[in-house]
Amino acid sequence: MSSPVAAALLLISLLLVEVGGVFIRYNTTAGVVDGKLNVHLVPHTHDDVGWLKTIDQYYVGSNNSIQGACVNNVLDSLVVALLKDPNRKFAYAEQAFFQRWWAEQSDMMQEAVKKLVDSGQLEFVNGGWCMHDEAATHYIDMIDQTTLGHLMIKKQFNHIPRIGWQIDPFGHSAVQGYLLGSELGFDAVFFARIDYQEKKKRKVDKSLEVIWRGSRTFGSSSQIFAGAFPDLYGPPEGFYFEMDYYDSPVQDDPHLDVYNVNERVNDFIDAALVQANVTRTNHIMWTMGDDFAYQYAESWFKEMDKFINYVNMDGRIHALYSTPSIYTDAKYASNEAWPLKTDDYLPYANAPNAYFTGYYTSRPTFKRFVRVLSAYYLAARQLEFLVGRKAGLTTFSLGEALGVAQHHDAISGTSLLHVTNDYTKRLAYGASQAEIVVNRAIPCLLTPDENCDSSTSSIKLSQCNLLNISYCPPTEEISDGKSLVIVVYNSLGWDRMEYVKVPVNDNELVVRDANGNSIESQVIEMDNTTANIRDFYVKAYLGELPKDSAKFWLVFKVLVPPLGWNTYYISKATKKGLFQESTSESLISTISSADDETVEIGPGPLKISFSSTSGKLKRVVNHRTGVDLLVQQNYLWYGSSPGDKQDPQASHAYIFRPDGRPPTASSGLVAMKVVRGSLVDEVHQQFNSWINQVTRIYKDKEIVEFEYTIGPVPTDGVGKEVITRLTTSMATNRTFYTDSNGRDFLKRVRDHRDDWNLTVNQPVAGNYYPLNLGMYIEDKNYELSILVDRACGGSSIQDGQLEIMLHRRIVDVEGSFLGEALNETVCVDEVCQGLTVRGTYYMSVNQLGHGAQWRRTNGQQIYSPLLLAFANEDERNWKSSQISKATSMDPTYSLPPNVALITLEELDDGTVLLRLAHLYEAGEDVQNSVLAKVELKKIFAQKNIKELKETSLSANQDKAEMKKLNWRVEGDSGDNPTPIRGGPVNNSTLVVELGPMEIRTFLLKF
Amino acid sequence: MSSPVAAALLLISLLLVEVGGVFIRYNTTAGVVDGKLNVHLVPHTHDDVGWLKTIDQYYVGSNNSIQGACVNNVLDSLVVALLKDPNRKFAYAEQAFFQRWWAEQSDMMQEAVKKLVDSGQLEFVNGGWCMHDEAATHYIDMIDQTTLGHLMIKKQFNHIPRIGWQIDPFGHSAVQGYLLGSELGFDAVFFARIDYQEKKKRKVDKSLEVIWRGSRTFGSSSQIFAGAFPDLYGPPEGFYFEMDYYDSPVQDDPHLDVYNVNERVNDFIDAALVQANVTRTNHIMWTMGDDFAYQYAESWFKEMDKFINYVNMDGRIHALYSTPSIYTDAKYASNEAWPLKTDDYLPYANAPNAYFTGYYTSRPTFKRFVRVLSAYYLAARQLEFLVGRKAGLTTFSLGEALGVAQHHDAISGTSLLHVTNDYTKRLAYGASQAEIVVNRAIPCLLTPDENCDSSTSSIKLSQCNLLNISYCPPTEEISDGKSLVIVVYNSLGWDRMEYVKVPVNDNELVVRDANGNSIESQVIEMDNTTANIRDFYVKAYLGELPKDSAKFWLVFKVLVPPLGWNTYYISKATKKGLFQESTSESLISTISSADDETVEIGPGPLKISFSSTSGKLKRVVNHRTGVDLLVQQNYLWYGSSPGDKQDPQASHAYIFRPDGRPPTASSGLVAMKVVRGSLVDEVHQQFNSWINQVTRIYKDKEIVEFEYTIGPVPTDGVGKEVITRLTTSMATNRTFYTDSNGRDFLKRVRDHRDDWNLTVNQPVAGNYYPLNLGMYIEDKNYELSILVDRACGGSSIQDGQLEIMLHRRIVDVEGSFLGEALNETVCVDEVCQGLTVRGTYYMSVNQLGHGAQWRRTNGQQIYSPLLLAFANEDERNWKSSQISKATSMDPTYSLPPNVALITLEELDDGTVLLRLAHLYEAGEDVQNSVLAKVELKKIFAQKNIKELKETSLSANQDKAEMKKLNWRVEGDSGDNPTPIRGGPVNNSTLVVELGPMEIRTFLLKF
Repeated sequence: MSSPVAAALLLISLLLVEVGGVFIRYNTTAGVVDGKLNVHLVPHTHDDVGWLKTIDQYYVGSNNSIQGACVNNVLDSLVVALLKDPNRKFAYAEQAFFQRWWAEQSDMMQEAVKKLVDSGQLEFVNGGWCMHDEAATHYIDMIDQTTLGHLMIKKQFNHIPRIGWQIDPFGHSAVQGYLLGSELGFDAVFFARIDYQEKKKRKVDKSLEVIWRGSRTFGSSSQIFAGAFPDLYGPPEGFYFEMDYYDSPVQDDPHLDVYNVNERVNDFIDAALVQANVTRTNHIMWTMGDDFAYQYAESWFKEMDKFINYVNMDGRIHALYSTPSIYTDAKYASNEAWPLKTDDYLPYANAPNAYFTGYYTSRPTFKRFVRVLSAYYLAARQLEFLVGRKAGLTTFSLGEALGVAQHHDAISGTSLLHVTNDYTKRLAYGASQAEIVVNRAIPCLLTPDENCDSSTSSIKLSQCNLLNISYCPPTEEISDGKSLVIVVYNSLGWDRMEYVKVPVNDNELVVRDANGNSIESQVIEMDNTTANIRDFYVKAYLGELPKDSAKFWLVFKVLVPPLGWNTYYISKATKKGLFQESTSESLISTISSADDETVEIGPGPLKISFSSTSGKLKRVVNHRTGVDLLVQQNYLWYGSSPGDKQDPQASHAYIFRPDGRPPTASSGLVAMKVVRGSLVDEVHQQFNSWINQVTRIYKDKEIVEFEYTIGPVPTDGVGKEVITRLTTSMATNRTFYTDSNGRDFLKRVRDHRDDWNLTVNQPVAGNYYPLNLGMYIEDKNYELSILVDRACGGSSIQDGQLEIMLHRRIVDVEGSFLGEALNETVCVDEVCQGLTVRGTYYMSVNQLGHGAQWRRTNGQQIYSPLLLAFANEDERNWKSSQISKATSMDPTYSLPPNVALITLEELDDGTVLLRLAHLYEAGEDVQNSVLAKVELKKIFAQKNIKELKETSLSANQDKAEMKKLNWRVEGDSGDNPTPIRGGPVNNSTLVVELGPMEIRTFLLKF
Repeated sequence: MSSPVAAALLLISLLLVEVGGVFIRYNTTAGVVDGKLNVHLVPHTHDDVGWLKTIDQYYVGSNNSIQGACVNNVLDSLVVALLKDPNRKFAYAEQAFFQRWWAEQSDMMQEAVKKLVDSGQLEFVNGGWCMHDEAATHYIDMIDQTTLGHLMIKKQFNHIPRIGWQIDPFGHSAVQGYLLGSELGFDAVFFARIDYQEKKKRKVDKSLEVIWRGSRTFGSSSQIFAGAFPDLYGPPEGFYFEMDYYDSPVQDDPHLDVYNVNERVNDFIDAALVQANVTRTNHIMWTMGDDFAYQYAESWFKEMDKFINYVNMDGRIHALYSTPSIYTDAKYASNEAWPLKTDDYLPYANAPNAYFTGYYTSRPTFKRFVRVLSAYYLAARQLEFLVGRKAGLTTFSLGEALGVAQHHDAISGTSLLHVTNDYTKRLAYGASQAEIVVNRAIPCLLTPDENCDSSTSSIKLSQCNLLNISYCPPTEEISDGKSLVIVVYNSLGWDRMEYVKVPVNDNELVVRDANGNSIESQVIEMDNTTANIRDFYVKAYLGELPKDSAKFWLVFKVLVPPLGWNTYYISKATKKGLFQESTSESLISTISSADDETVEIGPGPLKISFSSTSGKLKRVVNHRTGVDLLVQQNYLWYGSSPGDKQDPQASHAYIFRPDGRPPTASSGLVAMKVVRGSLVDEVHQQFNSWINQVTRIYKDKEIVEFEYTIGPVPTDGVGKEVITRLTTSMATNRTFYTDSNGRDFLKRVRDHRDDWNLTVNQPVAGNYYPLNLGMYIEDKNYELSILVDRACGGSSIQDGQLEIMLHRRIVDVEGSFLGEALNETVCVDEVCQGLTVRGTYYMSVNQLGHGAQWRRTNGQQIYSPLLLAFANEDERNWKSSQISKATSMDPTYSLPPNVALITLEELDDGTVLLRLAHLYEAGEDVQNSVLAKVELKKIFAQKNIKELKETSLSANQDKAEMKKLNWRVEGDSGDNPTPIRGGPVNNSTLVVELGPMEIRTFLLKF
């Protein structure tokens, strides 16, 4: 019997008998029964896609000194355990792990797992790449990472996840509820973390389980059954059966020590009744799992086998193996009327001084990196589609890295530093792969040829990831022979006018447009702040110092067609006559010191003025719109609480707990350097030794840009959480508005929650909300809006004020899971300094009713900046062989201003995934909150659409086949207004209609 | 696919393919190769049969807060892992665990495991019930517990373990090496723990692996290959792959973080070369496992799969799945000459101040309980055999409990208290079951009837487990109507004369023998020491106080035939004439106070005298033998070291580390009470408030009995390790003799080891050796011997001295694995006091050359005391229906004085297991160290032997079929003297010959 076949035959007979029913020790066949309390045992494991260890360490089980966890063991042992008994079930979520395990399996193992999925023993929940965060994530990223997983599950298993399973994220967003829930086709979503006060209240009135209508626009048409667990996502106390853990196994052999069947059955029933007491209907769910549980799955199942057997023998209540969808169906079948829940579950606190609002801002540079790459991924896939996929090139690595980055300990900033570094490495690798895609696509785009093979092209494009710190070799090395060619790609469906700003070493440069005409440009002397961080960070990221220092910024205006490109050429000014070219079209910026009481800047109708005495912003005027508002701006920092006698809870990566003192403002008098020019005015200011700002207004742009450079934040024993604050005298009545994942705006009222009577413990931290798009306040006249370039936290702590948190550097860790302070440093040659953050936020003051248009249009443009590709080439040659400017659409067409193209991607099988998003909520804007129409034939003017199929949001099922459960809602008359939604797409006209907030997803074949 | 059969079919196909070779990720097929270093990966788990948790807790995985361990998981997951790849192998030892797992399995799972054993994938090593201790165990118990496992393995698998696997016990005994090794049929024995100095030396000269000749008598005819591991029994550092542990898994997916194949292969080779450097031949063994490892077996195997694959791809060295027997065969095949090792590996120290010699005495009452039940088990099985097994009755529980108790953390006293209590409970339960067997067997024995069904008998027998503290209800309640009937059973093959001593409440009792003649008896007033502990301990053990106090001890002499019984009757003296009966045959003992300078006692030729001034023993005289020796005796205690600045090591359950001061002696003057009578003289003394002693000499017995009562040992911050010491002026030249597991005597030389140059760190602890039978010293004239009633430690710290440690109560724990002090207490009604120990040791002084006979004969009688069964019955009725006195043998026969019957047991299938043991070593005694002959026909005079088969020691193979490997020994000329051994048994005469030290085992059918 030493041959493999013989051994296998033996195992066969063994399992046949055990599974076939001849030798079943425990009866686990129970399904749902009527008339008894049904305890749904839902086996699951919560496998963080990185946290204390990296995702790879979690997968292979290395670095166990930090945390004993090995997902490979979980999945290996899980399959064996499920195959042993067809009644056993399991819910698995994280495709980032599952897919890498899957790829390692033999065909036959894959077949076995397919059968487990088919039979419902193994249910995928969420089904995205990770269990994404809901506060610091952008909805496009949420959709992308979910789609990544859903399409794989669809392909591998022809399986469609039905359940949202957000059991660990720190609060829950409206967009999660309706968009990544109902619109995705989910029947329910389950989670654990809602505010402790809210949970207490909901237990009392049995409203942990609700019908959630997260969208004001969609209302009941986009609702979902939402269940908050009574505690966290583990089993009731005493029922945790991971190997080596402490809870008592059922000991049912009377010959062994401490036979405890009766005792354990009683424990089980007691725990079930406690939960039944806070739950409607005869069904309760026990989440039988925890972080990285089921490393030896049999250790759990053998105990659950026994509980099901003995509890059902006892007969007082009923226990069964279940999954979230079986549980949901049982809830639905009960025909209960459920409480209604609107808006969101943010912010989250699990104790009076533990508001999870610090993480909205934690690791701000990582958050920015994710945001930058999100848009880059969007653009790269467009370019890939436009020229056709090239063999061996793929944006998959970037998509995967971004999928991982959406994890609720990744983008959230709540992983250990080494893990964050790993996320960053993955993103950087993915970006480098996507950059190859882009650099190989653009030449094909510019040289139309069906069989374009740009790998042989002589054109060498590059992109500049460190442009924000003025590092971009191609722009810094403009030689006499060649021009700097800049291909500017616009991933939006609209014409765009933007300003491009690149570092140069020469102030006598000429910028020409696609037609060869020199255009206006402006040169600004490089500021010290930028020069200082440039060297340090280039060395930190690239390992070597820049060859030279960049001396100037060169600014010029670009115009780019929708889904198209334009080309600009920069070369040394020809010396035919001194300054002949440069003097006419370029103006060296002047630097003035403040001499009047007020300094005003603004090359166009938008003007802002600063007090010369304080150096602070004091007024915003827009001569075009008639806006005139006093606005002060400053930087302040909250001291982080290290914990106190009453409560050791410190402010840390997760938690924002200020020390209770008023935030420290930067010094009263701020010196100014003012730069003026034909294209842009700037005010350069140093607020203190570690906070610098450039306030900027471009000509023809009604946006005030605040570019801040913050850091290294000094560590003098006190953590600092740095905010910027805008102060007006607007009467805002405690009210402000923040976005939900960059999509809907939700009304926030300071010190108030709609769903319960808030006890205010943390008057600052408890009023912070996550921003991904921006926030605004309004009074009878104006709307004051800001837009952000990354996720961060924001609030309005006093009426008329807005503040956002930009950086956090904290030295304490008490009460953190991490045991590591949020004290980010960057090192060069073993010299480390606190992380410096550079970013921009954008401000506008609009007449009441006109803010939405400003926010939506600019918000989309900020999310999707122009993609710049650089080459140093002979300008004449280039022009002769490349199309300098074009759109991929019908040249006469652009998308309506209320619609954005949020996905355009060629899938593996050649099908094209298209997503269009209406950008306005119902009633948000008079002109734009209307039905929009998009003509697909004009978008794809150069192609022939053979087939079009509308799908669910994640493209894993036909829209037409999606069925929604018709939940009953307490006190709901049923006559809810029907939202505007686009109708079916006519196959000949191919016009897509979109109602407010509608996102429609299509699979196209050309 | 939801049906069980379908799921099973699926799994079948899955495993067929994986195992069948279509999808093998790693090549693990390697066997031994020539010309390279072979690293034998020997997967194993070391599953302590109780230690920090009870055996049942270890099995089911409860009480994990103490230690995460679940043997059920180990065995469940192990089988799956072995079935997955037929190249994987495993060595399993502890049948106490395996057998309870086996009993839970389905027939088909059992079939699968049988195939694994058949193919050699699963190898049983040791194969006994536990991995027994080697210092505190008696050889009969070692044989019994090994046989228990071996016979089950034989029956279930037709498998014969080849390897001794004593990897954890704390030093290794000569008896283990030759008797439980070679004589058992083992080809090798492996272990980890030898003295650290010795290990260091053996590494240097590559002598960790030796040929061990443990028996002086048998020499090369009973040798075994013995391997000491270079470290402990885990893998080399960095190769421990239990779930959640820290060592780096092989990460061989280049797409994941930290691909480390090359690094890990180098680690592997480095570690292998280190070991190769201290090992002879091209074969090294890696013990791939540890305590309770393989809870999820796949976690180990998947790493070993990879190492075997990649190390062999590398090719510098060779790795393979192996077992101890494959390794042994490879060693043998190398034809290397091995160093010779004789005697034993005791004592064991793992650091300069860490001599594992404390445990020789730790938990002395538990050690005594095991010893008492060992003999009881022997007798009970004899009785069971003599009358035939009765349905539903079995000594199995006792055998199993004794098997468990031999574990190296059980009898050793090195488990936690709650675990020791569990062992005790098991023993008590087993004893109660065996007592039923005995009580049902004796009536059948006394009333010969082939179909005897004693369950209907009116005779109610009982036995008195607490006789040593004078508690025995039947003897205390002698009424007017009924007599106390005492059936005295002798499990030895010789006629015996002994004294019986029972507590009574009446000093006017008559003792009659089987013929109705009244016999001499003596009444001794109950001493206070006994009276005091009686109430407390009866309450502690039985839960209630005795009804009455016992007022007297009644002593009388009994004569019992070999393997037979006699009956004695005790009744109230008839009052025909005052004292008529009592005065003639009984003498109330007188109590005298010391009045002379010397007090001498001894009713026969043996006299001992005490100094009246000091109260101490001073002289032993034997008028028959001419012995006259000055002997002092005292009690002392070593203060336990709590650890010191140089070394925090404390004295504790394992370790004996005295604090370096001379032991504290009990006070100078000890008062005496002297009791004299016709049968026994006694001296009662109190040495201090917690040490009492009765020194006793029976008439016609040439034994000085020291019955000590020690405790509660005061806890005043200093642990106390209490010894008794005999001091003479004998010139012993640092030499003394201690037994090996109650069998061979080994010569010990103080501060010396034969095998290496001893550095003396612990002049006391390092000279302690374990005793199970006794020890002696000798000079030119005399031998001074002591025999013990349980395992304990002993030494000779000065020439002419002998000391044994009797009790230990310690308050410190530093350096112990237990985290619990060896501070035994006994509680009654929540009042706890330190454990009191009562025991007896036996002394004799003999002319040189005559000690062995005294030690062997009395040693065997001490081990196997007479079994007393009590009934309160009408004497006349009893006599009319019961045979009062008989032997089960031929009435004219008894075993030769140099032979003991150590097993007589009817097995499940009706076969009878017989073991005969020669009691003398070669040259030990002129008369007795000779070939002995035993006539089986006379032993089984009443039965007809149909078949007789001689077997290995554990009865699992025919003696004739046993093959021994012919190892080469360095410097061995090969002309070793041939020991005397008995020849084959003639089937018609059925005479068994036994040479010195020979134990022969037979299976008989009647």
